[in-house]
Amino acid sequence: MLRLKFEEVQRTLEQVLYTRNCPPEHARKVSYEMARNSLEGTYTHGINRFPRLIRNIDEGIVNVEAKPVLINRFGAIANYDGQLGLGITNAWFCMEQAMALAKEYGIGLVALRNTNHWQRAATYGYQACAQGMAAICFTNTIPNMPTWGAVDARIGNNPVMIAFPREKGDVVVDLAMSQFSYGALELARLEGRAMPFVAGYDEKGELTRDPAAVLKSRRLLPAGYWKGAALSIVLDLLAAGLALGKTTAAIGRLAGDEHGVSQVFFVIDLYKIAPREEVERIADDAVRDLLASQPIDQKGRIVYPGQRSKEIREQNLKLGIPVDERIWAQITAYLK
Amino acid sequence: MLRLKFEEVQRTLEQVLYTRNCPPEHARKVSYEMARNSLEGTYTHGINRFPRLIRNIDEGIVNVEAKPVLINRFGAIANYDGQLGLGITNAWFCMEQAMALAKEYGIGLVALRNTNHWQRAATYGYQACAQGMAAICFTNTIPNMPTWGAVDARIGNNPVMIAFPREKGDVVVDLAMSQFSYGALELARLEGRAMPFVAGYDEKGELTRDPAAVLKSRRLLPAGYWKGAALSIVLDLLAAGLALGKTTAAIGRLAGDEHGVSQVFFVIDLYKIAPREEVERIADDAVRDLLASQPIDQKGRIVYPGQRSKEIREQNLKLGIPVDERIWAQITAYLK
Repeated sequence: MLRLKFEEVQRTLEQVLYTRNCPPEHARKVSYEMARNSLEGTYTHGINRFPRLIRNIDEGIVNVEAKPVLINRFGAIANYDGQLGLGITNAWFCMEQAMALAKEYGIGLVALRNTNHWQRAATYGYQACAQGMAAICFTNTIPNMPTWGAVDARIGNNPVMIAFPREKGDVVVDLAMSQFSYGALELARLEGRAMPFVAGYDEKGELTRDPAAVLKSRRLLPAGYWKGAALSIVLDLLAAGLALGKTTAAIGRLAGDEHGVSQVFFVIDLYKIAPREEVERIADDAVRDLLASQPIDQKGRIVYPGQRSKEIREQNLKLGIPVDERIWAQITAYLK
Repeated sequence: MLRLKFEEVQRTLEQVLYTRNCPPEHARKVSYEMARNSLEGTYTHGINRFPRLIRNIDEGIVNVEAKPVLINRFGAIANYDGQLGLGITNAWFCMEQAMALAKEYGIGLVALRNTNHWQRAATYGYQACAQGMAAICFTNTIPNMPTWGAVDARIGNNPVMIAFPREKGDVVVDLAMSQFSYGALELARLEGRAMPFVAGYDEKGELTRDPAAVLKSRRLLPAGYWKGAALSIVLDLLAAGLALGKTTAAIGRLAGDEHGVSQVFFVIDLYKIAPREEVERIADDAVRDLLASQPIDQKGRIVYPGQRSKEIREQNLKLGIPVDERIWAQITAYLK
């Protein structure tokens, strides 16, 4: 395992993007956020996923130059067509629009169609929190999970992100509707680990903790069984319906790797109706109470969502970002 | 098991509410919605829960006359104080306000503090769908679930409801952040059944499917382990923060049965940016694809969220609502 400085990672990814004719504004943003994802511990959607992004650019399903185009707007809601641009710059742009609407109306919602993987959902939560706003964002995906009681994967694991700004540490939840994300399964396979709980079905239809078996069968287990499946279904309808875009079913009918997904960015400028000081006091009391929980395991530690990410960032800033040698060799080879 | 007509149930509940000096407008609404909850299969939050509502009124923690009072409003967001009124009429009122905001701005959000149990979350989803709007609502609760890795119950199972309107059947998801709701555990205990999956911890700290053991320990298992816990935490902050109300921790410090909860009602008038015909076509295609899933169990049947509720309604309209004799005797005794 290498330990690389954030700046080195960011610059290297940026240089690779230039080999794909990426405009500087987009190359800087995408390299910064993907390096930051690894810096803050979301290794699955940082450096590790960068070679796949380059492959997607080379396959022509990610257009490095495209920018979202407005479809419709009414009051505090709007929808955009992402023109199959880079997932990160498209999502960042839509969050900016939603935040501008929220400043004007207290809330703003932007839906986006024909976009690509936004990588780490929490990115857009921190974007809102940096301006003292709360956010709820979700995306659909390619079919990768059977609904509850089914054999074949017809729904997506549709990640959801909810962020609440807090001076002593933003509370940010970022989770997929499967018990484990594909990213987490891929990382475990790379590291030769079994999952801590059953993760899906093997090709014989048995529940298993083996990441390789689930990656092969593509039969992820929904988080909370029927609950994760139901949430996935309704979030897919909301995203595709609001964006006039593709549902998971429609994405599944496209040839090639996942592309053309639908996303929703919803922002709340909460201090407009709730004075900041009072909100901080309410939230701090709740977090304090949570952290006073008695751990099951004596060595265990109770954290709030987002706390680990903040700590990993501090550690990786000091020690460097841990990077798999094979992945780094693959990335630097693009520059040769 | 009795089979009672909807009208008989509704009238009986209404008469009981009059014995508690409930204003007619509130008595009609609460009796109608609680009878409807049982009619549509949410037995746990219909007739079965009515004696608890009466007890809460008698204890003075539910004020049958109160109406929400505006705290602050800015653009498309507002917060209200529920004055410890009836959960159903308070929530219905706030949804109406949010829907009015959505008609004007495309979206509307109302947060509500000092309110009481809204019974069935789906009620407010169907309220929005009836006017062709989508909705996301959530509530916090008394502490009833340990966070992931903890022994003591310091977070709530904070139900969430997401509704998407559809001509051929609204898609409505209504779920608590615990793998099973307290209502579901109580029903299983009443019927002498074990839960189909582990539901929580017994008093020795072992995972168990026995509803009585979990009701006793008050250690529910979060749906999706850490995922349900994380969602519960951030939804609690959003509800209490936006409403300037009580968090789960603060509710837990009050004496007596659960009261004074915080809720959020978020409505999207989606047809303002997405033509209805196109939305129906997108959603129908997705639902058709979902229902074509291959069931694991040959006798199994794949449904969309909300479908069973629609079918149970048809059946109960024909056969009458199934009502436990003991519960009905308890309710009719209030009239003697």
